[in-house]
Amino acid sequence: MRYELYYWPGIQGRGEFVRLALEEARARYVDVARVPRREGGGVPALMHLMEDEAVKRRPFAPPYLKAGRLLIGQTANILFYLGPRLKLAPADEAGRLWVNQLQLTLADLLVEVHDTHHPIASSLYYEDQKPEAKRRTRIFLAERVPKYLDHFEGVLASNPRGKGHLVSNALTYADLSMFQVIEGLRYAFPKTMARMPRKWPRLTALREMVAARPNIAAYLASERRIPFNESGIFRHYPELER
Amino acid sequence: MRYELYYWPGIQGRGEFVRLALEEARARYVDVARVPRREGGGVPALMHLMEDEAVKRRPFAPPYLKAGRLLIGQTANILFYLGPRLKLAPADEAGRLWVNQLQLTLADLLVEVHDTHHPIASSLYYEDQKPEAKRRTRIFLAERVPKYLDHFEGVLASNPRGKGHLVSNALTYADLSMFQVIEGLRYAFPKTMARMPRKWPRLTALREMVAARPNIAAYLASERRIPFNESGIFRHYPELER
Repeated sequence: MRYELYYWPGIQGRGEFVRLALEEARARYVDVARVPRREGGGVPALMHLMEDEAVKRRPFAPPYLKAGRLLIGQTANILFYLGPRLKLAPADEAGRLWVNQLQLTLADLLVEVHDTHHPIASSLYYEDQKPEAKRRTRIFLAERVPKYLDHFEGVLASNPRGKGHLVSNALTYADLSMFQVIEGLRYAFPKTMARMPRKWPRLTALREMVAARPNIAAYLASERRIPFNESGIFRHYPELER
Repeated sequence: MRYELYYWPGIQGRGEFVRLALEEARARYVDVARVPRREGGGVPALMHLMEDEAVKRRPFAPPYLKAGRLLIGQTANILFYLGPRLKLAPADEAGRLWVNQLQLTLADLLVEVHDTHHPIASSLYYEDQKPEAKRRTRIFLAERVPKYLDHFEGVLASNPRGKGHLVSNALTYADLSMFQVIEGLRYAFPKTMARMPRKWPRLTALREMVAARPNIAAYLASERRIPFNESGIFRHYPELER
């Protein structure tokens, strides 16, 4: 199977959770919107599937994945589909539901990260909602980051067989997504995350475990990995962390 | 199977999406936190499963469902599990993924609804974030409500075999969740939603179709249906819609 991933070409965003799974599994895939327009790629190819009324089961927003005749939207849904196929999810139903549950909780955290810099509206510039962003970020860092990271640290602590994995004793896409969220938080909020090794030692170890996997390390060092930037979900605005 | 639903006892909230599925299917279930404390219910029973470190695979937040030995968190995950068992989802993988995708898009909308009255922090009172709430709501009603409802209206339009259903030609939990979101929007933003019959006629028909189903009608008329109120996700603050 050759997968087609559709996501905004200039940011990691939600597409990155799918990219990490595909890269870890060395799956064959095309990142369609990063292919030149003259070769059928670019943003027009992305928009086509969302906007053309002839397309069945159109998605609401990127990312989406084409897998043969299937067109699948919503990050957690894409990963639920890919998980067993890429050997990044347990085979049993209980295990698959638990991985999905962790992924959905990470998705909730991600919305809160986005809203630190866009608390009023996605359609406004950050500069036009800066006072609100400062207020929201202060509480997010004081209350929400510890609540979420304590939860995931607890998931690791209660899975002693897992050798540092969130679920059972093998790597799942939830580990890859957890890695991505930690990397993003470290980029956006370096002061807060400087305390990570002391406060969340198991998450720190998970981050290192994932980064050291050969396929992930090769991907992170490649041009396929888009750097974090201030158009994405995780943005480094130093004034928000002060 | 006798299911146990765990959710905050005083609001519809996210638990309502699970309740509607259980009620439509006439499944046997207990709404645990609404059972008196002396009978083992109430909020302590709810908190126990989130906080007791002896509980395996603890959820991050309500709702969660106990189904035999399974403990399942995250609304969309619970419904994914219940769907085929309650005959509220297609049997094939493509159909299940599509229903899940619609449910996740409704969940995204729900977060945005919540943040109209809590744009800065869930831990602050509405009264302490009112200017921000007004600013956020204005844009939400002008841009986001039409974007989402146009999307779902389009899903109905592109499913002509469905006789008013979102997916294939039978009722799914996505239809029930769509109904709940429409009811909530009508409660919270009556002026905006007064235009619904003209702007979104297919969604209007879906709402009526679901409300007329005997099991749903009986549930809505019962004491098991908690009324909308200003502690829930959908809140009617007239000053926000002005």
